[in-house]
Amino acid sequence: MMVRITLDMDDVMADTNGKLIDIVLNEFNTNHSREDFRKKSFKELLHPKQQKKLHTYIQQPGFFKNIPVMQGAVETVTELANYYEIYIATAAMEFPNSFREKYDWLQKHFPFIPWNNVVFCGDKSVIASDYLIDDHIKNLVSFRGKGILFSAPQNLKETSYQRVNNWAEIGDLFLPKT
Amino acid sequence: MMVRITLDMDDVMADTNGKLIDIVLNEFNTNHSREDFRKKSFKELLHPKQQKKLHTYIQQPGFFKNIPVMQGAVETVTELANYYEIYIATAAMEFPNSFREKYDWLQKHFPFIPWNNVVFCGDKSVIASDYLIDDHIKNLVSFRGKGILFSAPQNLKETSYQRVNNWAEIGDLFLPKT
Repeated sequence: MMVRITLDMDDVMADTNGKLIDIVLNEFNTNHSREDFRKKSFKELLHPKQQKKLHTYIQQPGFFKNIPVMQGAVETVTELANYYEIYIATAAMEFPNSFREKYDWLQKHFPFIPWNNVVFCGDKSVIASDYLIDDHIKNLVSFRGKGILFSAPQNLKETSYQRVNNWAEIGDLFLPKT
Repeated sequence: MMVRITLDMDDVMADTNGKLIDIVLNEFNTNHSREDFRKKSFKELLHPKQQKKLHTYIQQPGFFKNIPVMQGAVETVTELANYYEIYIATAAMEFPNSFREKYDWLQKHFPFIPWNNVVFCGDKSVIASDYLIDDHIKNLVSFRGKGILFSAPQNLKETSYQRVNNWAEIGDLFLPKT
């Protein structure tokens, strides 16, 4: 049986945080820079009212449509697919408006991943996979295989999981060196 | 850790076949009765052209909206939820139009199942669960836990899995006798 790697979408394959930072810089009243928001979470830098406002943007139809692909993701996933079974598991149930947009986004940017290998879920404890690469500790905690933490502003202080900072590091970890 | 039972939606929780039979009896030219279609699959009773036509109905927006609940499902799942972790896994990726309709159907008929426990997938080998109750052999074959076959016209000759014919039998199998 091939080894299976399951990938989270938001802030692993898709730069969802980058899109949210754009919204904050363009629409919100803030003195923080783009760099600040890459180093600290919205929870640390925004007022609770602003956090709530940002959440309403995520729930709007269209939000998940035009999120940029994370740098190097397409190239590395293409390579990984030669050696591993690649699955995608995204916590879409929290945002029912996102279903079709997330599906179309994957078809557009990762058309080589078959639809059979895509999972929209809530809790990721239900994912049967050897590895899960995810930016949320809560997903790795409940996951039954080996969890790998993808760096994101809200998890930079976490030390309990093996960490990758970008897609180049995922390649280094999983691809043959030759 | 609580024992986890994962339920398929179509033809286990929802009487999707019943809705398809209604369509065939109302819209198609056929001499077969409702009873015939409960005993044999569409593949056995319909011409290939009719099978293809039926498939176009499934792909139409709205198809998954008003499917009847399988008899006894709500009562038995309500009881099971006292003893087991209940998850739902439905092969929604085949029908991208179905996402929101399936989500809303579950909210309407099974509002006590949290959204975290709902999975839209393709291949069910990705489901981590102790049990899977499903009417499709292919789903049970790839599943890593114990598969239970729910009777449906296309599987009545299968003998390789433990079988349940209805929700009363699921109750008999999983609920305490007292």
